[in-house]
Amino acid sequence: MKDITRTLARKLVASRYADIPADVIHQAQRAVLNFLGCAVGGASHETVERVLSALGPFSGPPQAAILGRRERLDILHAALINGISSHVLDFDDTHARAIHPSAPVLPVLLAMAEWRPLSGAQLLHAFVLGVEAECRVGLSVFPEHYDAGWHITGTAGVFGAAAAAGKVLALDEQQMTWALGIAATQSCGLQEMFGSMCKSLHPGQAARGGLAAALLASRNFTSSGQAVEAPRGWARVLSTRFDPAVITEGWGERYELSSNMYKPYACGLVVHGVIDGCIELKREHALRLPDVERIELTVSPRVYTLTGIKTPRTGLEGKFSVYHAAAAAFVREAAGEAQFSDACVNDPAIAALRARIVLREDASIGRTGACVSITLKNGRTHTKLIEHALGTLQRPMSDADLEAKFRGLTEEALAPDQMAKVIDLCWKLNSAADAAALAYATVPQA
Amino acid sequence: MKDITRTLARKLVASRYADIPADVIHQAQRAVLNFLGCAVGGASHETVERVLSALGPFSGPPQAAILGRRERLDILHAALINGISSHVLDFDDTHARAIHPSAPVLPVLLAMAEWRPLSGAQLLHAFVLGVEAECRVGLSVFPEHYDAGWHITGTAGVFGAAAAAGKVLALDEQQMTWALGIAATQSCGLQEMFGSMCKSLHPGQAARGGLAAALLASRNFTSSGQAVEAPRGWARVLSTRFDPAVITEGWGERYELSSNMYKPYACGLVVHGVIDGCIELKREHALRLPDVERIELTVSPRVYTLTGIKTPRTGLEGKFSVYHAAAAAFVREAAGEAQFSDACVNDPAIAALRARIVLREDASIGRTGACVSITLKNGRTHTKLIEHALGTLQRPMSDADLEAKFRGLTEEALAPDQMAKVIDLCWKLNSAADAAALAYATVPQA
Repeated sequence: MKDITRTLARKLVASRYADIPADVIHQAQRAVLNFLGCAVGGASHETVERVLSALGPFSGPPQAAILGRRERLDILHAALINGISSHVLDFDDTHARAIHPSAPVLPVLLAMAEWRPLSGAQLLHAFVLGVEAECRVGLSVFPEHYDAGWHITGTAGVFGAAAAAGKVLALDEQQMTWALGIAATQSCGLQEMFGSMCKSLHPGQAARGGLAAALLASRNFTSSGQAVEAPRGWARVLSTRFDPAVITEGWGERYELSSNMYKPYACGLVVHGVIDGCIELKREHALRLPDVERIELTVSPRVYTLTGIKTPRTGLEGKFSVYHAAAAAFVREAAGEAQFSDACVNDPAIAALRARIVLREDASIGRTGACVSITLKNGRTHTKLIEHALGTLQRPMSDADLEAKFRGLTEEALAPDQMAKVIDLCWKLNSAADAAALAYATVPQA
Repeated sequence: MKDITRTLARKLVASRYADIPADVIHQAQRAVLNFLGCAVGGASHETVERVLSALGPFSGPPQAAILGRRERLDILHAALINGISSHVLDFDDTHARAIHPSAPVLPVLLAMAEWRPLSGAQLLHAFVLGVEAECRVGLSVFPEHYDAGWHITGTAGVFGAAAAAGKVLALDEQQMTWALGIAATQSCGLQEMFGSMCKSLHPGQAARGGLAAALLASRNFTSSGQAVEAPRGWARVLSTRFDPAVITEGWGERYELSSNMYKPYACGLVVHGVIDGCIELKREHALRLPDVERIELTVSPRVYTLTGIKTPRTGLEGKFSVYHAAAAAFVREAAGEAQFSDACVNDPAIAALRARIVLREDASIGRTGACVSITLKNGRTHTKLIEHALGTLQRPMSDADLEAKFRGLTEEALAPDQMAKVIDLCWKLNSAADAAALAYATVPQA
């Protein structure tokens, strides 16, 4: 498989909007809506405040919006910040195999849309291609590359950002090859940073670096022409395995966005089945908290290992407590950021229910599945088996679910009519003459 | 060796200018002079033109000079561009074991000196510490890390940039630990890029990234506290070997700047012995070109492998032709950029002499050594054995040699009085109240 980088570049350059199936464009619009909610919801996070105060003073012209905030920065800084804010809540989309596809790519395109004329269709097209590039390059070295300690959303994401920006800049085949090469030599991000602010820095720097790569290539700044596949190229330096065929096979026949998942709840996927079960049982049987004697959760052994904190004391610990997730889901019928706040974790009613939850392990239950049994004080027991949690490929969130998630994430920053406007812009993006309105619509009104 | 990142941070924070021996400060001043010549000489290179046209429009406030040019950009962009220009001619300094120490670090400090008050002593102190950090971190994984395909000047350089910037920002131990961690998770740069413009991008992005890391840490942007040594940390993800002791042992007793070398000639080190021999024989015996019958070069087998092009056609090919290097050195008594131009390579007199050069391999000759024999038409032969080329640790360039190199590199950009001023500022830097004058002095007058 020679010239894989150039072949990928050629396919990116040759792609036309008309080639992309309508259902993939719809998936792209879903991704945009989900991304905007995450970014607006994360925009006032301490991580974002700190990066803005550190690097904002060095910004160039105010070309692009910081989503969910009033600052405007140059497109490189906007790409960096919006990449961070969209990932900081760990609530953004997840490709079925490990990468978070939107966070490195959409910040680039939203910023570029404010900088030069870009239609909604152009933005969606470039986004679809960016996701193809990052997922396919990432999957060519997966899982060995990830298992070695690389945060693949950063290391592969930079290819997606470069590909998307390069498409908007209408790079030719040689320039696109250089853009991918310049991206390759900026590829970075260590899993060791998980638990620190650097985790969300990774998609931000991938976005910024990929955009810079495309801008450089547009001025004929050169790189190796075999950046991915050369004996000393990206794949072999950053992975023990490399399957180049993955990068181009089935191009145009299947789309990686079709394997994209959206999280309904603001915590790890492994707890989602338990949350689904608690909410569904409560609603189906109109259960009331004072009537509950105890809750039994039967889950995969993984759930216990990853989220076994019995008595969490902070919101962050709450995300790693399946007990808290179940109690909060039952009491509040939700599992958003608010249900993983310090206040919610320390709510006496939730703490009391948490103490009456029993966990059982069962290796026959899938990673996102769960069996939930709620026993009432009158002796009756209601049981629900969740095979696949909401948000998985088997049971995707509906468009209405995504709208509800967006509203939940943006309720502190945006007025209801502004939320409605952003949602409307997302669903009509494929026919929008000017995509610049999208980022601007998330800016809180004075 | 636990907490190696924090230990390094503690030593960086605790260091005082008075701790640094005078000879190390003098070495630092030599490095500054050499760096400035390389950066001014490289400032009009096509690589620099292209990065400036691509990214310049996104610069923030005009805070810092682009060395040898009239543009002024924000400190992050200035660090990027000056990192590139100082390395683009492959003429910058070389630590005895692989890293080019100045290119990732000095651009940061020169830019910061224009941005906030910084004395010459503070700049030199931070530079010494930056070089310690990058060389020690780099050497802890050397040579396996380099042999895997990483361009260590980029991957380790970012630690040096972060350490130096962090010292100027007076970070505390926790912040310096974070700065090193943010640097670690930005570490990148592939050897596959050698031969393209991305090679010199690497120290530029290391400079920019390290400066950003320190700025972020100064606002308490967090990273892992064990970024270098953790099981999934930088050293183990980017190398098969890690010797943590190298990072701190002998701290304050020996200085990596004492192992720094300066190239007298604008080509690979392996050709330097041949160039020395040709120039010295010509001068010692007042040889004239028309009298020369042939030249015999006896060199290490490595020289043939790396620089065996018999008939180069471009200046770049000339850098990989020991024949051209010898012929040009004899005819012009120099081997600067001008001797590796297309014009010089195609000079009929040099081409004619090149055809009369014979190469012999001898494994007993060292990597930078050479034996040069010049046979005249009258039958006499003059022979010179060069054990160590000029510029090696065994035979360092003198301060006067460095001044001459600076003049050679800057003669097109700077007037003679301006050259003299920059040289004077370098030698007096340790007592300068304001280091900002240094970068500004390299700006060509209208």
